[in-house]
Amino acid sequence: MAAGADDLAALADRFRATRALTEALVAPLSDADASIQSMEDASPGKWHLAHTTWFWETFLLREHAPGYQLHREDWPFLFNSYYEAEGARISRAARGLLSRPSLAEVLEWRAVVNEAMAPLLDDPALAPLIALGVAHEQQHIELLLTDIKHALFQNPLGPAMWDGAPPAAAAPVAPMGWHAHPGGIALVGHQGEGFAFDNEGPRHRVLLEPFALADRLVTNGEWDAFIADGGYRNARLWLADGWGWVQREAITAPLYWREDQHFTHQGWQTRDAHAPVTHISHFEADAFATWAGARLPTEFEWEAIAAAHDPAGGNQLDAAAPPLPTGSAGLFGDGWQFTRSAYLPFPGFRVADGAVGEYNGKFMSGQVVLRGASCATVRGHSRASYRNFFYPHQRWQFTALRLAKDV
Amino acid sequence: MAAGADDLAALADRFRATRALTEALVAPLSDADASIQSMEDASPGKWHLAHTTWFWETFLLREHAPGYQLHREDWPFLFNSYYEAEGARISRAARGLLSRPSLAEVLEWRAVVNEAMAPLLDDPALAPLIALGVAHEQQHIELLLTDIKHALFQNPLGPAMWDGAPPAAAAPVAPMGWHAHPGGIALVGHQGEGFAFDNEGPRHRVLLEPFALADRLVTNGEWDAFIADGGYRNARLWLADGWGWVQREAITAPLYWREDQHFTHQGWQTRDAHAPVTHISHFEADAFATWAGARLPTEFEWEAIAAAHDPAGGNQLDAAAPPLPTGSAGLFGDGWQFTRSAYLPFPGFRVADGAVGEYNGKFMSGQVVLRGASCATVRGHSRASYRNFFYPHQRWQFTALRLAKDV
Amino acid sequence: MAAGADDLAALADRFRATRALTEALVAPLSDADASIQSMEDASPGKWHLAHTTWFWETFLLREHAPGYQLHREDWPFLFNSYYEAEGARISRAARGLLSRPSLAEVLEWRAVVNEAMAPLLDDPALAPLIALGVAHEQQHIELLLTDIKHALFQNPLGPAMWDGAPPAAAAPVAPMGWHAHPGGIALVGHQGEGFAFDNEGPRHRVLLEPFALADRLVTNGEWDAFIADGGYRNARLWLADGWGWVQREAITAPLYWREDQHFTHQGWQTRDAHAPVTHISHFEADAFATWAGARLPTEFEWEAIAAAHDPAGGNQLDAAAPPLPTGSAGLFGDGWQFTRSAYLPFPGFRVADGAVGEYNGKFMSGQVVLRGASCATVRGHSRASYRNFFYPHQRWQFTALRLAKDV
Amino acid sequence: MAAGADDLAALADRFRATRALTEALVAPLSDADASIQSMEDASPGKWHLAHTTWFWETFLLREHAPGYQLHREDWPFLFNSYYEAEGARISRAARGLLSRPSLAEVLEWRAVVNEAMAPLLDDPALAPLIALGVAHEQQHIELLLTDIKHALFQNPLGPAMWDGAPPAAAAPVAPMGWHAHPGGIALVGHQGEGFAFDNEGPRHRVLLEPFALADRLVTNGEWDAFIADGGYRNARLWLADGWGWVQREAITAPLYWREDQHFTHQGWQTRDAHAPVTHISHFEADAFATWAGARLPTEFEWEAIAAAHDPAGGNQLDAAAPPLPTGSAGLFGDGWQFTRSAYLPFPGFRVADGAVGEYNGKFMSGQVVLRGASCATVRGHSRASYRNFFYPHQRWQFTALRLAKDV
Repeated sequence: MAAGADDLAALADRFRATRALTEALVAPLSDADASIQSMEDASPGKWHLAHTTWFWETFLLREHAPGYQLHREDWPFLFNSYYEAEGARISRAARGLLSRPSLAEVLEWRAVVNEAMAPLLDDPALAPLIALGVAHEQQHIELLLTDIKHALFQNPLGPAMWDGAPPAAAAPVAPMGWHAHPGGIALVGHQGEGFAFDNEGPRHRVLLEPFALADRLVTNGEWDAFIADGGYRNARLWLADGWGWVQREAITAPLYWREDQHFTHQGWQTRDAHAPVTHISHFEADAFATWAGARLPTEFEWEAIAAAHDPAGGNQLDAAAPPLPTGSAGLFGDGWQFTRSAYLPFPGFRVADGAVGEYNGKFMSGQVVLRGASCATVRGHSRASYRNFFYPHQRWQFTALRLAKDV
Repeated sequence: MAAGADDLAALADRFRATRALTEALVAPLSDADASIQSMEDASPGKWHLAHTTWFWETFLLREHAPGYQLHREDWPFLFNSYYEAEGARISRAARGLLSRPSLAEVLEWRAVVNEAMAPLLDDPALAPLIALGVAHEQQHIELLLTDIKHALFQNPLGPAMWDGAPPAAAAPVAPMGWHAHPGGIALVGHQGEGFAFDNEGPRHRVLLEPFALADRLVTNGEWDAFIADGGYRNARLWLADGWGWVQREAITAPLYWREDQHFTHQGWQTRDAHAPVTHISHFEADAFATWAGARLPTEFEWEAIAAAHDPAGGNQLDAAAPPLPTGSAGLFGDGWQFTRSAYLPFPGFRVADGAVGEYNGKFMSGQVVLRGASCATVRGHSRASYRNFFYPHQRWQFTALRLAKDV
Repeated sequence: MAAGADDLAALADRFRATRALTEALVAPLSDADASIQSMEDASPGKWHLAHTTWFWETFLLREHAPGYQLHREDWPFLFNSYYEAEGARISRAARGLLSRPSLAEVLEWRAVVNEAMAPLLDDPALAPLIALGVAHEQQHIELLLTDIKHALFQNPLGPAMWDGAPPAAAAPVAPMGWHAHPGGIALVGHQGEGFAFDNEGPRHRVLLEPFALADRLVTNGEWDAFIADGGYRNARLWLADGWGWVQREAITAPLYWREDQHFTHQGWQTRDAHAPVTHISHFEADAFATWAGARLPTEFEWEAIAAAHDPAGGNQLDAAAPPLPTGSAGLFGDGWQFTRSAYLPFPGFRVADGAVGEYNGKFMSGQVVLRGASCATVRGHSRASYRNFFYPHQRWQFTALRLAKDV
Repeated sequence: MAAGADDLAALADRFRATRALTEALVAPLSDADASIQSMEDASPGKWHLAHTTWFWETFLLREHAPGYQLHREDWPFLFNSYYEAEGARISRAARGLLSRPSLAEVLEWRAVVNEAMAPLLDDPALAPLIALGVAHEQQHIELLLTDIKHALFQNPLGPAMWDGAPPAAAAPVAPMGWHAHPGGIALVGHQGEGFAFDNEGPRHRVLLEPFALADRLVTNGEWDAFIADGGYRNARLWLADGWGWVQREAITAPLYWREDQHFTHQGWQTRDAHAPVTHISHFEADAFATWAGARLPTEFEWEAIAAAHDPAGGNQLDAAAPPLPTGSAGLFGDGWQFTRSAYLPFPGFRVADGAVGEYNGKFMSGQVVLRGASCATVRGHSRASYRNFFYPHQRWQFTALRLAKDV
């Protein structure tokens, strides 16, 4: 892929905008806020700031910036995430024990790396790697937001990351409508234009049977009805692993719910019945769908409908402001949508060589695919072919539910 | 489905043969052998004898035999497996603490139920339920064999369930050949003739890309080469969950391996380099395939090739004799073959009403599909559409590996 | 210690009586009953039968019977308990997975060893070791009884080890009376006459302050009052570790209690309000004492009073019959009595050389001392100086409570 | 106890000095340093700052300062430690998730409380409670120092809390000498003059046999010899619980050791062979003593010798400087010394009424007594009767070993 001058300028802009957005988002965080870790699945905010910087230093500056010296020789051990090829690293669970380096020191490192990157932004040969780095940092922006939300939630004081009035109530939702699809052979996977992760290809044919996909997400109010109908106590609605999880963890509602409130980046707020439900697990989504006489879509059904929608539309992240689902039209935004598809390689998928090849392929077991984008996804990051993936019990992301049915 | 007189007679024969086979298989077991439980995944032999009998008593005799009295009022609590609709039951992990009822008492129960079943075998209306009961008991025959093997393996004395000389060495295997498939739209799932489990349907179309499937299973000798090449120490070969499992459990070889021996129902025996490797996990199968430059087949690829093979062929269980993989031709026998397919419902699948509806559908999360049949599968039990399923780390079944590749 | 001919004859009688008692006690057990293990703290009945036999074979026959051949070369690995000096052994938790050797094979081994022991019983030089072996086997008789009770309790059928009518109700107990002691310097520890374990010495002086010890055990009825008064819900009554245990394990009553019944070797029976409470933990005993305005005695206070009582008196085990607390006079019998004393070495205690030195000393951390004897203690086994010891949360023994107070 | 004007002035000075010392010690800590928690046993530095302040607010200001308003209504839930009588509180393990309130906010609270306390310091009726509060804060000063050391140790960067050169090497130690004691009846426990914790009384008589106590602590160099002799691999040296701990945790050296270095508040430093060994568990201390042919003293033996030594002598904490064992003469300082005594109530001990009664009594199970004082103990805090206590596996305190022997 040869990147032209215009493309390069646009990529450089995206690099700078993404780096700046990361930094703007953490502005409200104290050194301690940015250092705590609430569970092994989540990382401290400071860690995200540093890990994304490590990525640029490791894969761009160290390899391609003549004479570049590592900012600190012993930091890569701390901020490598899971790249076996890049050597040892501290265990995930211990990331919350790093009071040093401080938030200020990490921000200083970011500034150094941002400056050192400037000359490389003009090099067309590096454009693919830079595009990958931008996408990588955008992913961590979303994780940073969901991880800090989870960390602040642990605090009985219910601290807010952002102050200010909560948004106005959403308008009442209309009855659910459906996008019908006649079935047939469809092409899915990334088209080859623009950046995509390795796991989005190869583009290939799939056979679809006729189906319909809901034209909006399930709402908090609809979820209240599921609860009121005993949804969390009826074993028949649940997958066996899900029922075990519900009982073992004593689950009775989505994450962050408490009576008629839910926890947000603005602290505890009254829940909006018309807003999409978020922070549900795959198990919960599947049980709700069964209860509703519907089912989850496959990832290919979702993609076949989404291909006709604007991936940059809907409620996504534009600036350093608290993300909150509000109920957008279209297929994208508000929350990542569970599919019934296991996260598996597409036909013909090959793991890339080198450390970058560890990016996605090795996670293709035990996880489920989510599609779309959430209110915490940087606008411009997602695509119709984008495959997000989590374990079926996880729910600290902005996860949501769009029903499907056979027709 | 109307069952004619001939069909009914054949079904009654299968009922009697299956019940008799179960009982013949446990003849070598002592009361204590039949009572111990080596792990939560496995059940005591006595439990299988009783649970299969509970099935007949609960779904046939209690419902359809006029005046039938439960053999013991308090036994269903002990021998219900997981049917929520059939009420409470002891926890799986506690099955090995039941020294009472004794093996002799359970065998007596079996005789009572066998006799009580006789009149029902002539009722065409019950034929579908009886066919299900037979298939259910055949499944438990295989579990009984694999569970008792695992239990005896725990004993440092290495006790044999069956005495006698081990089989003669297998003939050297030929280099691996391939069944090529041109791709296209294939019909998969059960045809509608004869018995099948709910999870095998609905029959539906799938789109296949050109591929090839190996004409034999991977052997012990080939697995030795994988080990010698550091297969268990090379993170790049493994799925992330698999690599975590290898490290956490310190896995270095298939289950039951010890130096040049492996544990069998005849105790510790020298391993045959030409026999198929068994007792591997999905993680191991996937890593081996990656190492070999191949991949696992999808369940549909497997089925497309298997449709042309005899499901009653190969090395399967015919009589009360120690099962051992020997290397059969065809697609069936020796070991269940891992696919890369997650265990998910087919398009249009609906969970059946009633307790029987709990049979399969609720397990459709987190497990992978295996196809074929093993040396411990009752001959006649399997089909091209048969879907077996286990968690990716489990390996106490006779699990095996048939490679696939793109062409 | 020179053992005279009369002493030797008496010792030989005790050897034969003890071995015979062990075997008579297990007569009601099936092969499976004798093989199951309900928790890591407990062992299968068969294991006790074998381990006591291993003791004679290892420390007597192997060392002192010319030409004696081990009955089976690979059994010591199975039946060594914890003697590091005697080599490797299977993990405690795996004892319940040994279906082989069978109960019958173990009983056959017992007969072989009993016969082989005959000539050694006349050797005065071996008398001390034989006395130790007898005491060791008597200890295992009590463990065998409490372990099998715990195992049968796991079975929802509530099977009885012994049939027959439960004992008649105990007579109403009198109000608690007190044995007063004026304090002063007392001599405690074994006197030097007759057999004692190493941990009972050296005999030494202790200083006692004036105190009083109850003249009977706390009853089931008194424990009912403690429960009715919220004893299990009042944190102030409990030691910190005890309160943690109560909450973590959701403890609300002694072990084996269910409504107005308790589980016994004769199955579920109505509880007798006048019989001593048993199967309580040290934590529970301490909380009850605090609730009652009393305290636990020290082990030396207990011994100072017990010195004037008959250690062979009270309700102890005489024959192969179900043990049950009934409320005996004197200091011995019915249940082992908790003291507040940690299990520590006496001044001047030295661990003996050799494997036998592992007997007691190494357990002197984290456990508490119990004194007396229970209804499952072989009469003749206990002494005023006898020190039993368990972890403070354990309660599957016949543990009981005798209050003390300052005066 | 009537407190005269001079006493009151001295107490007020101690109040101010102790509060100021706490604050001076945390001066090097960042907000994040003060917020992290490395294990459930330890607390964040900020938590100690707040908890000690909660103590003053709860037991002094709220009760005795007319019109005092809680600084924040919702902070007591966060900073109550374990006082059941003072209501609910967050779980210990979650203390490290509190990024808010910030270190600055907590220090502000401290200033408010310090000022509000001023008038109460003149009230003779409050002197006992104030003395308790001072002692309480002194205890937390030591915990703050040991907890932050443990937290910084988790960081692979090995950050130092204090910079500056390490101390000069200690002078070579002389061969171990012994304080001999002839035995007899001794009086132990607090005398009744000055402040003491409830667990130090009642003063009572104990009977001692002749013994000797070492005149110095065991050194790092002597511990090296224990390691070199296979001390950590020889089961016979260890208590059973200790041997289980060594194997389960793969223990091979004291905490904080790495090759010839150890981790200190000044980061990684070369270990001084002549300095006392610290950061050992009771299990390790007991094993070393057995290896050395000695034993641990009882707490009463220790106290009988210590009565003749200056409790304010030796290497203890005087100012905001890094604590480090250096090898002091006398019985106090450098490290808390393990005794063989279980932590049990003294004869006649009664738990005090009210929340303050929860101070010590409820911990009297499962822990062992340590005596003396460490380099992190505020000088003036300890006494000959002072009883410190920890679980036998814990070793993040400055724990040390002084041998004893029978004579």
